[in-house]
Amino acid sequence: MSRERVVVIGADGAGMSAAHQALRVAADHGRDIDVLAFEATEHTSYSACGIPYWIAGDVGSSDDLVARSAAEHRDRGVDLRMGVAVTALDLARAVVTTDDGGTHAFDQLVIATGAGPIVPDWARGSDGGLLRGVGPVKDLDDGAAWLDRFVSAGEGAEVVIAGGGYIGLEMAESALRRGLSVTLLTRSRVMHGLDPELGERIVAALEESGVRVVERSTVVGLGTDEGRVVEVTTEDGRCYPCDLLVLALGVEPRTGIAADAGLPVGDHGALCVDERGLVVPGIWAAGDCCETRHRLTGEAVFLPLGTHANKMGRAVGTNLGGGSARFEGVLGTAITRFADGQRSLEVARTGLSEEEARAAGFDVLGLITEGTTASGYMPEAEPIAVKVVAERGTRRLLGVQIVGGPGAGKRIDTAVVALWAEQTVDDVAAMDLSYAPPFSTTWEIVQIAVRRVADRL
Amino acid sequence: MSRERVVVIGADGAGMSAAHQALRVAADHGRDIDVLAFEATEHTSYSACGIPYWIAGDVGSSDDLVARSAAEHRDRGVDLRMGVAVTALDLARAVVTTDDGGTHAFDQLVIATGAGPIVPDWARGSDGGLLRGVGPVKDLDDGAAWLDRFVSAGEGAEVVIAGGGYIGLEMAESALRRGLSVTLLTRSRVMHGLDPELGERIVAALEESGVRVVERSTVVGLGTDEGRVVEVTTEDGRCYPCDLLVLALGVEPRTGIAADAGLPVGDHGALCVDERGLVVPGIWAAGDCCETRHRLTGEAVFLPLGTHANKMGRAVGTNLGGGSARFEGVLGTAITRFADGQRSLEVARTGLSEEEARAAGFDVLGLITEGTTASGYMPEAEPIAVKVVAERGTRRLLGVQIVGGPGAGKRIDTAVVALWAEQTVDDVAAMDLSYAPPFSTTWEIVQIAVRRVADRL
Repeated sequence: MSRERVVVIGADGAGMSAAHQALRVAADHGRDIDVLAFEATEHTSYSACGIPYWIAGDVGSSDDLVARSAAEHRDRGVDLRMGVAVTALDLARAVVTTDDGGTHAFDQLVIATGAGPIVPDWARGSDGGLLRGVGPVKDLDDGAAWLDRFVSAGEGAEVVIAGGGYIGLEMAESALRRGLSVTLLTRSRVMHGLDPELGERIVAALEESGVRVVERSTVVGLGTDEGRVVEVTTEDGRCYPCDLLVLALGVEPRTGIAADAGLPVGDHGALCVDERGLVVPGIWAAGDCCETRHRLTGEAVFLPLGTHANKMGRAVGTNLGGGSARFEGVLGTAITRFADGQRSLEVARTGLSEEEARAAGFDVLGLITEGTTASGYMPEAEPIAVKVVAERGTRRLLGVQIVGGPGAGKRIDTAVVALWAEQTVDDVAAMDLSYAPPFSTTWEIVQIAVRRVADRL
Repeated sequence: MSRERVVVIGADGAGMSAAHQALRVAADHGRDIDVLAFEATEHTSYSACGIPYWIAGDVGSSDDLVARSAAEHRDRGVDLRMGVAVTALDLARAVVTTDDGGTHAFDQLVIATGAGPIVPDWARGSDGGLLRGVGPVKDLDDGAAWLDRFVSAGEGAEVVIAGGGYIGLEMAESALRRGLSVTLLTRSRVMHGLDPELGERIVAALEESGVRVVERSTVVGLGTDEGRVVEVTTEDGRCYPCDLLVLALGVEPRTGIAADAGLPVGDHGALCVDERGLVVPGIWAAGDCCETRHRLTGEAVFLPLGTHANKMGRAVGTNLGGGSARFEGVLGTAITRFADGQRSLEVARTGLSEEEARAAGFDVLGLITEGTTASGYMPEAEPIAVKVVAERGTRRLLGVQIVGGPGAGKRIDTAVVALWAEQTVDDVAAMDLSYAPPFSTTWEIVQIAVRRVADRL
């Protein structure tokens, strides 16, 4: 049997997980494969999630964010071409075209083109380029630009953040810690993936730290001075002075080449893949350019996260190499932190919020419970609020949201496992969760919260 | 129907959980019950687990450790008699006798007499009392005595701790933080509920903090000077200078009255109860005086912990009040911390260790995985080691042990839920666990550890 050629488009988490796993599994199966990968940028396998912490000063260098360099990928057997973009895909001929004029045949293809930041037209000048002082926070080049802007801005410079999701919150932290003045504008609510009573707590923490938060405020235009942003205008006619504008408006899947080739794209613009990661025979996809399946609703969702990208890439690699693996779907788990140097508020969620559950047609009870992260008498005890959403009738746990001090956030994993294993609130209330005074109250707060729901269902 | 009288022996977590839950549930069911409770000491509902932190100085006062005072219990409807010990139980007449000369009839009885510290003969003087400078760490009086001894001991006074379990470790921390010199002697290994390669890490941390650790060292006698301990002698003939000796040798169930009355007691000396908490019709028991069922082995175990006591008490109270509840057994979950003011090492376990699993006849793979508590580039990243034990064939997760820096310990709850829900290592490897740089690596370490086992099974 001749050597099989796998072409991978994109050398970040999903693509490189797929590449290496394919090589490993193929070797285990005695199959000969070559992996040729194209990366349009100069960066591989970096932590996009770490960028706000680099900008804040927690991380010394962008090199620290790179899990594996191009050289390391090559050492491990991937023929990786950096700075080479794939410009077209010909399914009938099984060939990709690259912007260096090459054409490359493949036996199997992995599309791992990721997602790009949403950049509205108002962020651009008449030449189509971004206005000065304006930018997204997606890749290492963006990070370097923001680090430079934040460090060189005078103290108290006005930073406006458009977007109240995870990146918006993290960039608010970065800007505060760099001594800047921060206004956060968001179309709906801050962290709108959480129910409002949780979101309010985050807003309160932001405001106590000096962030000016304006919810239900949509940016519609910018005022400029010689190509540099000086003012932000919102739909309701208000104006905000602005030296720097962070675009934290979310991302959209990069699926232009794939869609042009006729591959199926869903409502979110992301590639439709099956559980193995297959788009059509011979064509695989993984990571932020793909839809995933929500385990609780069964619906296709677009939840671009590094942790999913790595898991999807690994599954695709296993399948490519001759093994068998599936990506088992998602629960919408997410976690972040807002720390201003004094306080630290952890925020996490998994499953369905009460709003989401109702929208999906579930008959639910949602209840918030207050407690502490450690036994109340311990110095490390911090307030924590846990919202539990459960289905009436089946008594099944459907979602948990947590906002609280240090130690609060990672408790979400307790709920993740319970959701994954389709446990009822009664199951969780009975479990032998860990207790010692520095870590929890005698009844762990997640368990108290679940028990209170169980008592009321 | 006349009012029903419930008598409760013991007013700590189990007894008072049962009492209040019985009153609540009975009210919901329209039943009239009176609850009469006897507590032999002057303390109610206190956190025994918090005592080492009170001695260390983390907790201001013993009052802070009291979840609910006698007056609060009475306000909520429990007729609580403090300082009154039950001396005999007559099952045939359904009457208890108390040391104030009273006899009290009951319709239903709850035995919640707890456990007492193991105090070897060598710890006592010729008068049968404890030698001066020697004591256990079980109740608030013990705590007050140790606080006084540690604070009034000169700096560098020699504290010997007999016992290398949770209390031993926590008292080593307390003594260190009070500026004392600490020697820890333990019959087998430090934290012998963990496999040796985890225990070694704890020993290393203790030694780096200046604790002298001697494993496989059994105390056999004490040297005294005018009734005060001055020296500890071990089985191997060694002597250790000793100004203060902490007895951290474990506890034994207090079941004298119950056993004398002919109630069934198991191998561990603890009362045998069914899942509802029933010993024999009309006689219930809960908390540290009881056996519990290990969910993985099905065997009766003696695992006296506040969190079990509260859950068992609540189940008994529900049943007493006319509802229906079961205590669903335990996984042997435990967590603690060793902190010397500079470093903090968290230690947690659940399910079966590799040693325990083999002893129980399982065919297992156990593997330790090293990682970090946060993304490696974050300042909060600390080393963490996770040992996973899984069954060959079924691929079922059987146990997890964790030793690591801040944020490590509570990860055990991820494993607790997975064990409770009988998940395989493949299930856990696929789960949508939370990730953000301050909280974990892209693949959460518990998941990496499980995945590595899955790859090798």
